[in-house]
Amino acid sequence: MSAVTIYDTTLRDGMQGEGISFSEEDKLKIARKLDEFGIAYIEGGWPGAAPTDTEFFRRAKDVKFKNAKLVAFGSTRRAKNTAADDPYIEKLLQAGTSVITIFGKSWDLHVRDVFRVSLEQNLEMIRDTVSYLVAQGREVIFDAEHFFDGYKADRAYALETLNAAAEAGASCLVLCDTNGGSLPHEVEEITREVVSIFNTRIGIHAHNDSELGVANTIAAVKAGATQVQGTVNGLGERCGNANLCSIIPILQLKMGIKCVPDESLARLVELSRYVYEVANIVPDDTLPFVGASAFAHKAGVHADAVEKNPRTYEHIDPALVGATRRILISSYAGGSNVVHMAKRLNIDLKKQDPQVKALLDHVAELERQGYSFEEAEASFELVVKKALGQYRKVFDLKGFRVIIEKRGPEEQCITEATLKIAVDGKEAFTVAEGDGPVHALDNALRLALQRFYGKELSKIKLSDFKVRVVNSRAGTAAKVRTLIESRDQEASWSTVGVSENIIEASWKALADSVEYGLLRHLEKKDAARSEQVSD
Amino acid sequence: MSAVTIYDTTLRDGMQGEGISFSEEDKLKIARKLDEFGIAYIEGGWPGAAPTDTEFFRRAKDVKFKNAKLVAFGSTRRAKNTAADDPYIEKLLQAGTSVITIFGKSWDLHVRDVFRVSLEQNLEMIRDTVSYLVAQGREVIFDAEHFFDGYKADRAYALETLNAAAEAGASCLVLCDTNGGSLPHEVEEITREVVSIFNTRIGIHAHNDSELGVANTIAAVKAGATQVQGTVNGLGERCGNANLCSIIPILQLKMGIKCVPDESLARLVELSRYVYEVANIVPDDTLPFVGASAFAHKAGVHADAVEKNPRTYEHIDPALVGATRRILISSYAGGSNVVHMAKRLNIDLKKQDPQVKALLDHVAELERQGYSFEEAEASFELVVKKALGQYRKVFDLKGFRVIIEKRGPEEQCITEATLKIAVDGKEAFTVAEGDGPVHALDNALRLALQRFYGKELSKIKLSDFKVRVVNSRAGTAAKVRTLIESRDQEASWSTVGVSENIIEASWKALADSVEYGLLRHLEKKDAARSEQVSD
Repeated sequence: MSAVTIYDTTLRDGMQGEGISFSEEDKLKIARKLDEFGIAYIEGGWPGAAPTDTEFFRRAKDVKFKNAKLVAFGSTRRAKNTAADDPYIEKLLQAGTSVITIFGKSWDLHVRDVFRVSLEQNLEMIRDTVSYLVAQGREVIFDAEHFFDGYKADRAYALETLNAAAEAGASCLVLCDTNGGSLPHEVEEITREVVSIFNTRIGIHAHNDSELGVANTIAAVKAGATQVQGTVNGLGERCGNANLCSIIPILQLKMGIKCVPDESLARLVELSRYVYEVANIVPDDTLPFVGASAFAHKAGVHADAVEKNPRTYEHIDPALVGATRRILISSYAGGSNVVHMAKRLNIDLKKQDPQVKALLDHVAELERQGYSFEEAEASFELVVKKALGQYRKVFDLKGFRVIIEKRGPEEQCITEATLKIAVDGKEAFTVAEGDGPVHALDNALRLALQRFYGKELSKIKLSDFKVRVVNSRAGTAAKVRTLIESRDQEASWSTVGVSENIIEASWKALADSVEYGLLRHLEKKDAARSEQVSD
Repeated sequence: MSAVTIYDTTLRDGMQGEGISFSEEDKLKIARKLDEFGIAYIEGGWPGAAPTDTEFFRRAKDVKFKNAKLVAFGSTRRAKNTAADDPYIEKLLQAGTSVITIFGKSWDLHVRDVFRVSLEQNLEMIRDTVSYLVAQGREVIFDAEHFFDGYKADRAYALETLNAAAEAGASCLVLCDTNGGSLPHEVEEITREVVSIFNTRIGIHAHNDSELGVANTIAAVKAGATQVQGTVNGLGERCGNANLCSIIPILQLKMGIKCVPDESLARLVELSRYVYEVANIVPDDTLPFVGASAFAHKAGVHADAVEKNPRTYEHIDPALVGATRRILISSYAGGSNVVHMAKRLNIDLKKQDPQVKALLDHVAELERQGYSFEEAEASFELVVKKALGQYRKVFDLKGFRVIIEKRGPEEQCITEATLKIAVDGKEAFTVAEGDGPVHALDNALRLALQRFYGKELSKIKLSDFKVRVVNSRAGTAAKVRTLIESRDQEASWSTVGVSENIIEASWKALADSVEYGLLRHLEKKDAARSEQVSD
């Protein structure tokens, strides 16, 4: 099949998602990333609709894009104006992009109930807006809003709206399933008919309200659509837009349709994480292709089989999209996963070893308390080492006290942590402040450990902190699970702590995190020393 | 089209999802809920594979299901045994269900690389297992694992495995897209062929690895499959199973295919939330049909249009699945959403009012600090009331101090909060303990407010507490956002607090929560009093 052009609307439609908001700086960052990735069109926003969008286009004028064309998005002119004297159309031109996307109504219900103009007036608004912008030297893409609903309600009128845009010089007619209510076979049939009628390029813009955003997009491509609109991670209003992170690998790997450079595909996970990071929202781990769980194997039989032949439970090689396989640890997963983890620690275990059974029982008990090691492999490693007698203690906690004080309604909270630890019988007793209790405890712990492990310690930085409320299996008080991610120059690792008390849960994760990081360095030092000795 | 039977595997395949674990008690609860909902088959687990599953079936014998048949799941017999002397097959029978699902290999690669038996031996394992169980008086469903991959690799052999099961007396042949790698047109074509060959009922079991779990299921139904396997909320290994919460409303509302009682459909949201609750995982708000965002309107133009005619941006009436429309509040949403919210507070505002602009600016500033009101409408209501001079102060905070102390490595943390507030110039100074700092603060606040608002206060209970780390737009230290949900007999409400200090963020959300609850009661009392006066 012929190539498909990708049109990204993360910065416009994606931002309509609940809880998502981008600053103009965020938008610039994402636009640069999309350009590097090889996306053909980047829709930046609706100039004039929000100050952020206007400002984004002003600043984007200084950015040199390597691959992408930047697109300004806006509505057809207002009924009372001509395109030439509509201030919103003027703002679109001022955005200074070579491409402008105009959305117009193709559903008679919308024309009457929302625009409250006649059907003929609406056609004229489309014609006038598109031809005016084309006359100004811009490429104009026409988004036919609610096209499929419109087609089902009044086929002839819906096609007339496309015709108005095509005759006015639009470069692409995009069929939008704005409410996300259409089914793949409908999309395929209707798109096939539209493709047969028009000589203009046809595009598809799907939403995910029926969990069919990706399927509807593929159905349209099979029917001849050659432009695909969507968002990274499927961000967008309500249930989101069609997810480019699934569409791109399906087109390129499964349907043999080129849409991004081959080398970009292996950076798909990176693109997904980057957008989540900038959007400041928790990644959806279950996302196809790019989610942390996409190639994670939990069931013992699956982990076993994947070891024998990855194709048994992986529909593609994860490396093709930049993902990695994970074997999950839980009491449910069974012995093979523990053996797999032990192997990584250079501990040789067999599934039948009594230690494996004891370890699984211990993990099951911790899970009942609210622990979960699937996202905290460093804590799990410490559990394994303790169980197998390979654990080396880095410090003993003697006690701590955290005080958080607010002296008046407008005063800043003051946080102070005191901590006593011992290393090889030598005590350290420290006090530190912090932005919050975990920060203060972290500061006090670092201060206390400094005289024992100064150099190693300074390389370890806390990089992320997550908190989740879990109901303990006992069903009494709610428990808190905290996850801490730390990193040094070489690696990052995650640890977990659980308690009814958020400070204690944080302390446990923090202690594991620092301990794990120090052990890594100490073990490396030991290894280097024993090599020297044996030389 | 003819009716479709729903087969739920939340308790077996759903539990393979990362981070999901059900106790036998959890499984019993969910099974009862699925039965009430009108699901035809409930797969409870793999007896013998995990103690939880064995125990579940033992206890389920005492449960009377109104609609559903409970199903035990297991593999074909082992190569070295006969079905009659295979201890795992014996455990399946001991589970005591009238229906047993047997999964077998239909992909030659699996037979050779995982089972390591000959192709003929595998057929014999299927035949022997199914016919033995049928002879024991059980209904046997055959899950053809990796059927689509198998068909593509060796069509004749894949069909032979189905034939072996059909001839042995299986009641249904289920085509599994185990790795989730197939595309809808492939599933439709292959299913159509299988349906034309066999007289036995054909089922579909799809996974979501290509974001096509729902689409593949629908494609199979269009091709003649009449049993649909899936999980509530699409829980399951890797990217999950086909999501019944999308499939059921699509079949019943969009395709006119009956699969659950009509009155159940309106309880779909309730079913979804219930399973999330028992699974103890955070609901995916963007889930089609049942997610909190599925009918949430953020863009100002959309909120406007939906007010005029809901069909403009809603593909179905949310009430049909038990969902409700939400109009979201954010600076980005614009004036209409604020006017909509004010209307709910009986405050008459116009979009052009200068107060609306001032309020939006204030909200934008709070958002920059890390606030988000989309999930905290009670806090937003307090913000609106303060801005419009309609706010009545319930208490003044003078200060608080929280001490968390751990006196030894194995000692429990001790948490103590002291708090001083004033109501109408009268001070209260209290101290309380708690499981954690927020609990201690909550206890101290209730104690302090008791002499002023005793009766009203006792009705308000904290019902949920969530914590999220957000990066402040300023880009300096990480901030913490806490959300608190409280309820009384009549309603529940959510509030938000943001700070670099988790204790202060919690305090803010807690203070808003108690204040909002007390205001509700006070306003009702005032209204009742003024009615009496005017009598």
